[in-house]
Parts: sequence; C-alpha cells; structure tokens
Amino acid sequence: MAQWAYYNNDFVLESDCAVPAGDLAVQRGYGVFDFFRTVAATPLFLDEHLQRFQRSAAELRLPIGKSDAELKTIFTQLIQKNALPDSGIRLTLTGGLSPDGFAIARPNLIITQQPMSRITASFEQGIRLATYKHQRQLPQAKTIYYLMAIWLQPWLTQNSADDVLYFSNDGVTECPRANFFIITAGGIIITPANNVLKGITRAQILRLAGEKANERPIALAELKTAQEAFITSTTRQILPVTAIDGVAVGNGKPGPITRWLAEQLMAEIRRLV
Amino acid sequence: MAQWAYYNNDFVLESDCAVPAGDLAVQRGYGVFDFFRTVAATPLFLDEHLQRFQRSAAELRLPIGKSDAELKTIFTQLIQKNALPDSGIRLTLTGGLSPDGFAIARPNLIITQQPMSRITASFEQGIRLATYKHQRQLPQAKTIYYLMAIWLQPWLTQNSADDVLYFSNDGVTECPRANFFIITAGGIIITPANNVLKGITRAQILRLAGEKANERPIALAELKTAQEAFITSTTRQILPVTAIDGVAVGNGKPGPITRWLAEQLMAEIRRLV
Repeated sequence: MAQWAYYNNDFVLESDCAVPAGDLAVQRGYGVFDFFRTVAATPLFLDEHLQRFQRSAAELRLPIGKSDAELKTIFTQLIQKNALPDSGIRLTLTGGLSPDGFAIARPNLIITQQPMSRITASFEQGIRLATYKHQRQLPQAKTIYYLMAIWLQPWLTQNSADDVLYFSNDGVTECPRANFFIITAGGIIITPANNVLKGITRAQILRLAGEKANERPIALAELKTAQEAFITSTTRQILPVTAIDGVAVGNGKPGPITRWLAEQLMAEIRRLV
Repeated sequence: MAQWAYYNNDFVLESDCAVPAGDLAVQRGYGVFDFFRTVAATPLFLDEHLQRFQRSAAELRLPIGKSDAELKTIFTQLIQKNALPDSGIRLTLTGGLSPDGFAIARPNLIITQQPMSRITASFEQGIRLATYKHQRQLPQAKTIYYLMAIWLQPWLTQNSADDVLYFSNDGVTECPRANFFIITAGGIIITPANNVLKGITRAQILRLAGEKANERPIALAELKTAQEAFITSTTRQILPVTAIDGVAVGNGKPGPITRWLAEQLMAEIRRLV
C-alpha cells in the first residue's frame, strides 16, 4: 500500500522519496533521526522526541529548518492522509547535498510513517542478549550510524542471541536501538547514565521507578547477579531480557518488577490517548 | 555542467541519481565505496581499487552484482560520455532498500565522475595535522562512516590544522581520508600496518620505498623526532606534513625524501598513461 511521506516542503509518496546520491548521508553516513509512536492518532511523548531531535541535529550542526509547531502540523496531516492512527513516525535529517562531498550542506528532511501495532507481542518470550565491546561515537546524539549493529547480525545468530549489548571499559552501555536496565537483588532499578542515548521510554521508566531508580555504571560482573533485566525503546517499549551471553537472568523468565513497570507504562499511555 | 552517472543498470544524469530514503545508507549509514583517478582517460591502479572495493563489499556482506570486466566497460563509457579524461570516479554500494530498515537488502550501485586536475597544487604548502583519539570501526573496509571526520571540522579550525590524525592506544593510525607516514632520522619510511585502511597510494609508496619501508606502529612520541612526515591518498597523492599539533615536523618544510617519493610516484603515473 502506497504511503505518504513528507520531504523537505511537500507531501510525496514514500516510494518517490529519494535522497540525492551526493547527500552526505549516502556519501559519508552523516545524519540524525528520531522515531515516535502514534496511538489512536495521538503522538506519544512528542515533545520529548522533538527536543531530542533538536539536540541531535544541533550536535551534528544540522539546521532543521522547521519549528516544532510546523512539524506537529505535518504529523497531523500525515496521519490523516495515510489513515494510520497506530503508527511509527520517523524523522530523518541528512547532511545535505555537499558540493565537495565533505562540508555540511543544506539538510534534507524526510518524514515517513509506518503501521505499528499497539501491542508488543514478544513480552512473555523476552529477548536474549550477547555482549560486544563497542562504543558508539557521539552517543548522546541519535545519529544514523549503525554500521556495527548491522554488521553484527550474523554474529548474533552464531551466539544464539536476539540483540547486542554493548560494553566499554566503564561497563555495559546500551543495545543498538534500546536502553538497558538491570534490577538488583535489593530491587533497585539501574541503568547507565553515560555514553548512551537517552531514550524517551528510558526516561518514563526512571520516572515510574521513582526512588527505586539509580543511574550509574553497570559492571559486566553485575549481569550475573541481576534478578531481572530489561530493555526499553519506542518500538519495543519494555522487553524482559531472559539471558545474557547464554546465562539466564534470574529464573530466565520475565520478572515481577519488569512486569509491573510494563503495566505502569501501558497505563500511562492509556491516560495520554 | 550536467554530468552522467551510472545507477544500478543505467546511465543517468548525476542530478537524477537518488537513493530511496529507506535505503540502509540513509537510514543506518551502511555502505561502502571506492574512488580512483583517471589521467588521459586511463584509470590509475584500477585493479587494486577494484580488489579493495570487492573486499569492502564482502566485509559488509553487500553483493556488487557486476564483474570487474563489466565495471571496467562502464568506466570507459562514462569517461567518453562525460568527455572527462582527467577525473575522479567514485563507486558507492549501499545497504539497499530494507523492508524493516535494518536487514541488508539488494544494494544500490552508484558510479559518479568528477573533474580532477593532474597536479596536486598544494605540495609546497604541505598540510598541518592535529591528533585526535578515535578508531574507525572495520578499518580494513572503506565504509561510508565519516561521522567523526565531518564532526571534527570546526575543531580543526580551532586548532589551526588542516586535517585530523587519528590515534588509539597502539599509536597513530591514519587520517580520515589518507594514510600517514613518518621518516626517521635514519631515513626509514614508516607507516602503521594495523587498524588502518590500506590505501592504494600507500601500497605504491611502500613499493617505491623498497628496503627503506617499514610497516609498524608509530607511537605518539615518535612524531616529535620524525625528520619528515607525509600523507597519501588518491586525491592528494603525496602531501608533506609540515606540522603536527602545532609543532613543526623537521624544519617545517617538505623534506627531500618526501619530494623524491612524490617524483617517483609521478614518474610511475607517467609510465602508466
């Protein structure tokens, strides 16, 4: 089914939405993006996503060229044109068509929408992670740099894992497209504070966890004693981590605190829409 | 002036050469490229460039979909159509239009040509480098990942430098788009062997240097005692490095061994065309 998209200043069919081959995104992998959900035509946590999009663009020195109000109008029109109330909307901002293939030029802004179910189906199944040493560059910006994440896909299969958990000298950091949390034996909900992308769902979980939350480094050794672990993202919301590097987390099933947080997040979303 | 390009299976105007916004190059910065010179309509070191392009594509699991012979025919036709005997030709191979925005799909192949002078004008002026700690991922592949290189441009200006020299725990490695060499007081021509892209001009220099060449790590401290230093690339061929982090290399002018190597490289190119 043909979807509408928005490209710079116009609504176009997504299939007609193409970036010049000379754009720095294609030539040099230089660009940023953001991604949010809509439920019943209501964008979730939109201001938070737009703030992060602005921060990412500023970090890469890319002018967005549209105000938040203008962007919100475009989102509303896009949802109507596509008749897609439950969706994911992605904003991509590229480095632009550079005359010398290196200097930042006028960015191209692309907004696309895709259908997305309200329910994350795989909660009960959970996911298995495998650790890999890697630090994303400019981790605070949501850049389009996913070279390692895509390159590691066969390695994940070889290691019977569903996703990567990056670590560096300071401990574990994040998954390529999700934040990572552990829950200690004492019921403290921990997620790393530094060298990670600050997820919007991550912020909601920290808010819901209240005094039980602690942002601090997580050493690799702590993974073995964690009672529960989970990841958060806009797409997957909360997913229990059942195993890391082939070792079960807790009893290898979704844990009670993870389940409680997921229920609270769902309740919050129901309040918003 | 409108240039012809080649896109998948057709010659198109470069201005019409655009990559779907859903391509993994735009969505995830996933792709490889190579770049070679033509002089008097003769591609320089073409087999070496095509071998490296194949290796880069294989490393990222991207099928090129064309034989070397087919590519060579396209290059010949492109040079004729554009009437550009002295040029640079770039091949870009993207991750393709991925249904889920993550899995590798059928790559898009883009071949573009740009005018390029035979003479590297800035040899006498040389270039000033500033060191920065960074390790490119998958350094042996010529990926489109240049996030740090572009992000560092204002930092270079602040540090009165023309280009970055990356270093890691094992010493200096390379510039974002060039290999790096030093010449010791004993006249030995040294370039790092590991964690760098193996440049085609680099290989020519090693061949010309013969027994005087040594591929080994270069510690940061060695930069201060180097008699000469230079960078090599297809675009810049050989350029003397006159200063690193604000400190003059040797007497701060192009040195005799660098000059001799540049003359040998020019002589080799004259033999080929």
